[in-house]
Amino acid sequence: MKIARPTLLLDKEKCWKNIQEMVLKAKKFDLKFRPHFKTHQSAGIGKWFKDFEVNSISVSSVDMAIYFFQNGWNDITIAFPFNQLEIDEVNKLAQQINLNVLLVSSGSIEFLKKNLKNKIGFYIEVDTGYHRSGIRAENINEFDSVLKQSKDIPLLDFKGFLNHSGNSYHAKSQKEISQIHHKSLQKMKELRSRYLSQFPQLELSIGDTPCCSLMNDFTGIDEIRPGNFVFYDVMQYRLGSCSIGQIAVTLACPVVAKNQELKEIIIYGGAVHLSKEYILQNGSKCFGYIVRLRKDGWEKPLKNTFIISLSQEHGIIKTTDEEFDKIHIGDIIGVLPVHSCLTANLMKQYLTLDEEIIPHMQKKC
Amino acid sequence: MKIARPTLLLDKEKCWKNIQEMVLKAKKFDLKFRPHFKTHQSAGIGKWFKDFEVNSISVSSVDMAIYFFQNGWNDITIAFPFNQLEIDEVNKLAQQINLNVLLVSSGSIEFLKKNLKNKIGFYIEVDTGYHRSGIRAENINEFDSVLKQSKDIPLLDFKGFLNHSGNSYHAKSQKEISQIHHKSLQKMKELRSRYLSQFPQLELSIGDTPCCSLMNDFTGIDEIRPGNFVFYDVMQYRLGSCSIGQIAVTLACPVVAKNQELKEIIIYGGAVHLSKEYILQNGSKCFGYIVRLRKDGWEKPLKNTFIISLSQEHGIIKTTDEEFDKIHIGDIIGVLPVHSCLTANLMKQYLTLDEEIIPHMQKKC
Repeated sequence: MKIARPTLLLDKEKCWKNIQEMVLKAKKFDLKFRPHFKTHQSAGIGKWFKDFEVNSISVSSVDMAIYFFQNGWNDITIAFPFNQLEIDEVNKLAQQINLNVLLVSSGSIEFLKKNLKNKIGFYIEVDTGYHRSGIRAENINEFDSVLKQSKDIPLLDFKGFLNHSGNSYHAKSQKEISQIHHKSLQKMKELRSRYLSQFPQLELSIGDTPCCSLMNDFTGIDEIRPGNFVFYDVMQYRLGSCSIGQIAVTLACPVVAKNQELKEIIIYGGAVHLSKEYILQNGSKCFGYIVRLRKDGWEKPLKNTFIISLSQEHGIIKTTDEEFDKIHIGDIIGVLPVHSCLTANLMKQYLTLDEEIIPHMQKKC
Repeated sequence: MKIARPTLLLDKEKCWKNIQEMVLKAKKFDLKFRPHFKTHQSAGIGKWFKDFEVNSISVSSVDMAIYFFQNGWNDITIAFPFNQLEIDEVNKLAQQINLNVLLVSSGSIEFLKKNLKNKIGFYIEVDTGYHRSGIRAENINEFDSVLKQSKDIPLLDFKGFLNHSGNSYHAKSQKEISQIHHKSLQKMKELRSRYLSQFPQLELSIGDTPCCSLMNDFTGIDEIRPGNFVFYDVMQYRLGSCSIGQIAVTLACPVVAKNQELKEIIIYGGAVHLSKEYILQNGSKCFGYIVRLRKDGWEKPLKNTFIISLSQEHGIIKTTDEEFDKIHIGDIIGVLPVHSCLTANLMKQYLTLDEEIIPHMQKKC
């Protein structure tokens, strides 16, 4: 296939292996696997999980839940704070599938009591240190309040406690990731101990890619919900969650100009393709690593070569004298994205190495 | 209209006034106005420019040129380095409209000589200090080379010199913007003087919103190509390009949770809606200002209240004790985007205050 503009390439084999590895890990530790589909947002890629007998998923919006329901999924956790304004959609979905929502405080219980029409499960989100959303693990009064009030609502079925240790993304070392993971496990287990006699079926669900990829202790945990591992990306590579060879997507970009004086390469590939997510590389912003494309995939990243700035459609690559001379206007080069979820969301489709186009969920307009 | 999920609101009146103001400014200084449509990317909004007798536009990709051609525009400059890999599309477009492309070095001339099938205009991009793309203004050899080689190609019609002072976006003060502007004007005029005898028709085209909004000296300039002014945004407000009341878009977001301890509000509205563009506000990252919505628009931003972090779908707002108590779960609040071009590109449609839906160009899949 002729590539003429930014195109998100997907190495199906790498992706499939990433899925397999996480499936095996979940099996090894006797964990229920409820992968987060917010990364790929694709019915086509979703199907590959079915080959591994995965039947339950997480999503991050009601729209995404509807999309995957329409594509054959019927056990879905919307792992995002319950949005009262989408109650109609939630009621409708709950009539058709096993649907779980996330409560992050007692703030929506009264609302659900009045407006819920069909049975849904709910998890309480626990803030074990990320401080994004959820009830702080130590705030027992609030857990008591949610559980007490929800008991009066027959349509509301308490499933357990859920957390997302997103703070692992900011860790400086694997030791730090391990500390975050174990602290979070400890807090989750304490909560279960406290409420187990009242709710003997309650489950613990955790779900960030760094912890799920790197850790080997899931004592007491029932379910994992990683998402990013399906593709991984430069950020995960830097955290140690994956090898560089496991990154399953790269953005193919046309080289449109070269700046001889600055040893910079200008590509057609900008913030509307990659997103403005960056990592710091020797103190400078890096918006993606650069790889050479081959017919059967791509090579390892070029040394000392990465995107130093992005505007809407331009990407500027700083490189070495040696690589500069080898890259030509009219070439196509690959960019390993810093954050594959955001890149996939912008690109809205995948092109596999055997030239199959796999659609991504479209924006609901 | 019921708003239940992130929705990009457009105040048509503000937008219309922004257009009018720039049209009048162009008239006042006797400048050809070739607005950049990469910000709104919308046929519907494009039509409003026709009310002001604007007939020529700039775009940032071949896809966008095709989209606007299909929507009735027939004088288009693709203000992005010429991409050899899209020659077929360029040839096809050039057959139907007045098309200009951008050459940023002599690197594509040989290619065009061999492959160009229809007449196109071209500008040479001049790097007057932004250092993104273009020939450094002092690099006379390269200008000579482009102009000499292109003379042998009858289908290639030299239009003039074009620059984009994107460095104005990083200016710390209006004085600095003024310095950038005047330095760039000086360099452009020197180039014209040098080549005017050879090319008596050559034009000078400049095009960044801060300079076009703020400056009042365009001596020697023939054409302006600002884009962002159509909506403006928090970044432009901070640069002084606009008043806060001129920002014509806000992202309406459901409030889904409140964190009493941290005085934080959690909204449904994240990086997939706003983009991860930020400004620094007292040394901290700010991803958007917060406004209260009214039926006829929105108010001024709440004091000491802004988005401090974004993940894929979550936005976290830090606010004051007073405002915290006034915002409730289930409310809809507005976020003035830091970079409206990227937000519009993600949202893919606009909802006007009188509830008209205006589509944005979709991703070509």
